[in-house]
Amino acid sequence: MKNIVIIGGGTGTYTLLAGLRQFPTNNAVIVSTADDGGSTGKLRRDLGVMPVGDLRQCLVGLSYTDDTTRTMFSYRFTKGDLAGHSIGNIILAALEKSTGSIEKAIAVVARLLNVRGEVVPVTLFPAVLSATLQNGKRIVGEHFIDEPSHDGSIKIKELKLKPSGPANPRALRLIQNADAIVFGPGDLFTSTIPNLLVKGVGQAIAKSRAKKIMVANMMTKHGQTDKFTVSDSARALQKYLGQKLDAVIVNTGKPPQKILKLYQKERAEIMKTDSEAIKKLGIRVIEEDLLSGKLAVKVPGDSLKRSLARHDSEKLAKIIYKLVS
Amino acid sequence: MKNIVIIGGGTGTYTLLAGLRQFPTNNAVIVSTADDGGSTGKLRRDLGVMPVGDLRQCLVGLSYTDDTTRTMFSYRFTKGDLAGHSIGNIILAALEKSTGSIEKAIAVVARLLNVRGEVVPVTLFPAVLSATLQNGKRIVGEHFIDEPSHDGSIKIKELKLKPSGPANPRALRLIQNADAIVFGPGDLFTSTIPNLLVKGVGQAIAKSRAKKIMVANMMTKHGQTDKFTVSDSARALQKYLGQKLDAVIVNTGKPPQKILKLYQKERAEIMKTDSEAIKKLGIRVIEEDLLSGKLAVKVPGDSLKRSLARHDSEKLAKIIYKLVS
Repeated sequence: MKNIVIIGGGTGTYTLLAGLRQFPTNNAVIVSTADDGGSTGKLRRDLGVMPVGDLRQCLVGLSYTDDTTRTMFSYRFTKGDLAGHSIGNIILAALEKSTGSIEKAIAVVARLLNVRGEVVPVTLFPAVLSATLQNGKRIVGEHFIDEPSHDGSIKIKELKLKPSGPANPRALRLIQNADAIVFGPGDLFTSTIPNLLVKGVGQAIAKSRAKKIMVANMMTKHGQTDKFTVSDSARALQKYLGQKLDAVIVNTGKPPQKILKLYQKERAEIMKTDSEAIKKLGIRVIEEDLLSGKLAVKVPGDSLKRSLARHDSEKLAKIIYKLVS
Repeated sequence: MKNIVIIGGGTGTYTLLAGLRQFPTNNAVIVSTADDGGSTGKLRRDLGVMPVGDLRQCLVGLSYTDDTTRTMFSYRFTKGDLAGHSIGNIILAALEKSTGSIEKAIAVVARLLNVRGEVVPVTLFPAVLSATLQNGKRIVGEHFIDEPSHDGSIKIKELKLKPSGPANPRALRLIQNADAIVFGPGDLFTSTIPNLLVKGVGQAIAKSRAKKIMVANMMTKHGQTDKFTVSDSARALQKYLGQKLDAVIVNTGKPPQKILKLYQKERAEIMKTDSEAIKKLGIRVIEEDLLSGKLAVKVPGDSLKRSLARHDSEKLAKIIYKLVS
């Protein structure tokens, strides 16, 4: 069986994991530990635990338990002391406190949720992400990069992570044995690239014989990839990766006008595909209509914004499966 | 296999359940829904869920899962938004919100914790317990009875529950099929008797061919059973039960002075055994040294007071097992 390693976190990763479940592959996901927003950020500050939100979402993505348990695990409280917290986040935090280790916490949840595959934090240290903009301004904290106060015309010049390592040995082992390493879909500068800032990860990827595949995001993200084309994304990723991508998967489907209007409010646009520019980078371009027929539904009790234009899980997974077969 | 039904909730019930695990019996526990203190009370008020604390403790008592999961389920947060809440309480609340039913919530947790036996709320309605004292003063709310402002010299004249029914059909079915119904150990007026105030429960017990057994508490409880003897407890229980008990199990062991001093601070004393008075009520008295060798340990993160003098789980369970065999 081929080993697929996804580097990311967030809704995009969840979608891809859900698709890969249909294929005979070993699936693993490596998740950044820089998240400091929302419920995750509060738990991190209040209890000194690792960022748990992305871990939770990936565990649910790889879970083969009944729907009731999966739904429970994603349930988000709306009232009282617990408002804003998702139950899965709280469980992971409690387990980290009671077992003393995030990896033990993940192992217990993996058993509870009947998870097949691995969910691995890229380091065992919570980290602080900072971005220096082209005008020299520095933004400290993942959620400030994610929900920026600037107007998006100023690009991110450099991302930094503190502490930047060491990498989780289990993450390095997964990379070493991977047949494909998939970057995205997900927020480029806050979900994908932070993993590459961890010492040892870039070198491990360089040594790996895995195909390096980027799944291009459908939409730009305000404060991160405003006005970006797909080749801009690929270039940014390659810069932090320190090496060449093998393939980029691009969606050609166009989200309906209604959805685009909702994105407009978040200052997000369709990311333009400049296939020739990507090919000039020596990267194979795979273009297909990958737009999911289902519009993303707002989870009850979930106050966070979620991507509305999503990849079709199965179609995306199928392309990746073919690339490694 | 004999069917043992415990009517209670709280640490005493947990202890008994832990002991019964060693014996080949079907064990079930019926739990009051009047609890409104601590984490349970906050969740109840904030989220409109059923009282979950006693349910959680009983589920752990009947759980056959690994220690890590059991410990996690009882873990209590000490900081931040979640301070004071136990993770099991939060999980049950989330499940009730996401499934829409406390019984479904219990079923999911029972599976997660590998529970053998049944944990059943006495009604499916959260209820308010009130006590009228002998001086005519009324105390509304379980936790105000539990932690009274009066000096304990004024006895409880009458307990009331609103709403007082209907009983959970599953609770009635358990009673109907029981070979033994065990009352206590546990707080007489706030854990045990509230179950008997629910419409239908008394009649079901009257019709049942089960042996009715009271496990006398070792210590008096301030505001509830100050200066009570065991026969006083039996009389109070029989009043609300509307029928005679078959047996009372009494501990003859004496807790060490160190422990008694701690109890003194909570205005609790050893409950005196007046065997002749109990026998005059037509109740069999079983006397044995049932004091646990282990002193109860304070659970880390658990801010609640827990009984320090406890019954030896196995010895107590053995007596009950013999009574039904």
